[in-house]
Amino acid sequence: MEPNAFQTYLDSFTDREWQVSDDEDGPVRFALIGLGWWTADKAIPAINNSTFCKATVAASSSKEKAEQFVDDHDTLEHGLTYDELQDGVATDAYDAVYICTPNARHQTFVESAVAHEKAILCEKPMEATLEAAESIVEDCADLEAPAMIAYRMHTEPVVQRARELVREGAIGEPVHVHGNMSQSIVGWGENQWRLDPEMAGRGTSVTDLGIYPLNTTRFILEREPVAVQAMMDSSHEYFEDVPDEVAAFTITLEGGVCVSCTASQHSQLDSFLRIVGTEGRITIEPAFHSESSLQLTRANTTVDIDTPQVDQMEEEFDYFADCVLDGREPAATPEHGYVDMQVIEAVYDAAERGETITL
Amino acid sequence: MEPNAFQTYLDSFTDREWQVSDDEDGPVRFALIGLGWWTADKAIPAINNSTFCKATVAASSSKEKAEQFVDDHDTLEHGLTYDELQDGVATDAYDAVYICTPNARHQTFVESAVAHEKAILCEKPMEATLEAAESIVEDCADLEAPAMIAYRMHTEPVVQRARELVREGAIGEPVHVHGNMSQSIVGWGENQWRLDPEMAGRGTSVTDLGIYPLNTTRFILEREPVAVQAMMDSSHEYFEDVPDEVAAFTITLEGGVCVSCTASQHSQLDSFLRIVGTEGRITIEPAFHSESSLQLTRANTTVDIDTPQVDQMEEEFDYFADCVLDGREPAATPEHGYVDMQVIEAVYDAAERGETITL
Repeated sequence: MEPNAFQTYLDSFTDREWQVSDDEDGPVRFALIGLGWWTADKAIPAINNSTFCKATVAASSSKEKAEQFVDDHDTLEHGLTYDELQDGVATDAYDAVYICTPNARHQTFVESAVAHEKAILCEKPMEATLEAAESIVEDCADLEAPAMIAYRMHTEPVVQRARELVREGAIGEPVHVHGNMSQSIVGWGENQWRLDPEMAGRGTSVTDLGIYPLNTTRFILEREPVAVQAMMDSSHEYFEDVPDEVAAFTITLEGGVCVSCTASQHSQLDSFLRIVGTEGRITIEPAFHSESSLQLTRANTTVDIDTPQVDQMEEEFDYFADCVLDGREPAATPEHGYVDMQVIEAVYDAAERGETITL
Repeated sequence: MEPNAFQTYLDSFTDREWQVSDDEDGPVRFALIGLGWWTADKAIPAINNSTFCKATVAASSSKEKAEQFVDDHDTLEHGLTYDELQDGVATDAYDAVYICTPNARHQTFVESAVAHEKAILCEKPMEATLEAAESIVEDCADLEAPAMIAYRMHTEPVVQRARELVREGAIGEPVHVHGNMSQSIVGWGENQWRLDPEMAGRGTSVTDLGIYPLNTTRFILEREPVAVQAMMDSSHEYFEDVPDEVAAFTITLEGGVCVSCTASQHSQLDSFLRIVGTEGRITIEPAFHSESSLQLTRANTTVDIDTPQVDQMEEEFDYFADCVLDGREPAATPEHGYVDMQVIEAVYDAAERGETITL
C-alpha cells in the first residue's frame, strides 16, 4: 500500500533535511564562553544530547566558576578565565566556540576565536552596537571555519516547514505579518545586564525579544526589510535606563509586505507569528519560547499540526556542527545577523525621531 | 445544589445585560437608506428577527429599486427616492433611520433625519471626510432622539465579556494589542465605491476594515489613542486610486499600550484581536467577520469559549432600539465615532509623511 501524501508529510515533519554528515561523524568540540543560566540550563544539555557536539572547555570571568563548571559536567576538561582563553590556553582541546556572554562582550571573543582559527557560534543579537557587529562581520571574513549567529528558530521544524509552505505558494503572496515575543524579567532581580545599555545595547525588549519575530519573518519569507517605524514606552521604574519596557515596530519588507511586531520584557509570557497571504495563513503559536506549533489555513480549511517538540538548542548545535564538519556556510552568517542589527538600530532611531526610517 | 460559578458564567455568556425595555415594547420603525447588499442580506434579516425593530420604509437613489424592495419584503410600506425621503415624505411611517449608503452620503441623511427629528443609526465609518464627520457631530447635538454609529462589535457578547474581563483585571495591566481585519474585494467587480476616494474617503483598507480592530480595542480597553504611525502599500492595479491595498498602523493608547493593526482588501479572509497584559491574554479569533470566539489565558491556564453565535446585526439593532425606547444615549455616540475618524485621518497623514502623529 502506498502511504498517503499527508501521512508521509507528517511522518517526516521533524526530519533534519539539512543534515549532510553521518551520525558517527564528529564530535565538534566546544569552548563555552559565558557560563550563565542559558549556557548551564539550555546549551550544556543540548550539547550532551546532540549527535555531533561535545563541550570540552568552559570559560568565565571567574576562574573559580569555570573550574566548578568543569567539576559539574563530565565532558568538560578545562576551566579557563576569559584572559586564558583569549591568550590561547587549551586551543588543542576545542574546535569551535559558543559565545553566550552579555551582548557587549561578543566581539572580543569573536576576535580571539578568529585568531585561534576556531569555528564560531555567537548568540544573538550579535553585539550591543552596530559598530561592534560590523567588526564581527569583518573579523569573520578572514575565518576559514564557519561562523554563525545563534538563531535557534532556523532549525525549528515548524519554521522549516513554514518556510517551505510559503516558498511553495501555500498562502499565495504574503500580505501582512503579526509577531510578538514577550515575558516578564521584573522578577529576575536587580543588576540585570539586559537593562544596562552598556551591556545590552540601546534597549532591552527589541534587542532581546523583538529580534525573534523580526528574524523569523525574514527567514520564512526570504524577504529583506526596506523601512522601519516604531513606538516605545517605559514607565515602570525597573526600566528607567531603557526606552522599551514595551515596543511596537513595523517593518516593510521587499514587495510591500507589512510586518507588525511587538516585544515586552514586562508582560505575560507570550509569543506568536502570524503570516497572512492572498490565499491562506500560517500561524506559529506558541512560537519563540522553546516550543512551537504550526497552523495552516487555506480558504476554509485549517490544519493544526502538533508534533513532538524538538530541543531547539540541540537542533541548532547539530546544524552548526554539521556545517563545521561539512565545511559549508550556515544560513545565519554574520552578514545575515548584521541585517537584524541594522533594523534594530533603525527601530530605536525611528522611535526617538518619530519618523519612518528607510534602510 | 448551587450552580458552579463558571457554569453560571457560561450560561449567561450571551445575555443582553444592556437591555432595559420589556420584550413587548416597541417596535421602533426604521427607514432604510441605501439598499445595497449589506442592507438586503444583513440589516433586513436582522430587523425581521429582532425584538424591538421593524423596517417600514426603504429609500434609494432609484424609485424603481425602492419599490421593488418594498415588494420583496413584507413589513416595508413605502419605497422612496432619496429626494422624497429628505423632503419629508412618509415621516409618520418611521421613528428612526438606518444609513447604509457609501460613506460620502452619510452626512446629508443625518442632516435630514435631524430635521425630521428621527433617531439615527449610521454605518461606520461616519463619513468620507473629517469635516463631514464633524458636521454629523454638530447636526446630532440638536437631536433629542439617540444617534449612534453602527459598531456591531459593541454588542457582540464576546466583546462585552472581554471588556468585563479587562475591567475586572483578568489580564492585569494591558501591555500590547495585535489586530487585523482583511478580505479580498478584488473579485467584487469594477466600479466598487470602496475604491473611489470621493465616496469612501482617503483609502479603503483602513477606512473600511482597519476601523474594526481600532474601535474594538478602544471599546474593550476603555482607553483613547494618543499617537499614530502607519505604513501602506498599493501595487495591484485594482488599488491604483487608493494608498492602502495593505496597511499597518500602530496606535499608542493612554498609559503607553501599543496597538499594532493591519488591514487589507486584498488578502485571505482573516480577522483577530489579541490583547496581552501583565498577567494574561485575551484573544478574539475569528473577530470581525460576523462571528467571534473568545480565548482567555491567565498564567498557564487557557480557556476557549465557543458559544452559539449571535446575529451581530440583530444585537446591534435591538441595542439601538432599546436606547430609543429608553431615551438613553448609546455607547457609540457620534463623538465616539469621531475619534476613529481623527485616528483614520492621522493614519493616512502619518503614512504620507512618514511621521508619528500625536493626536
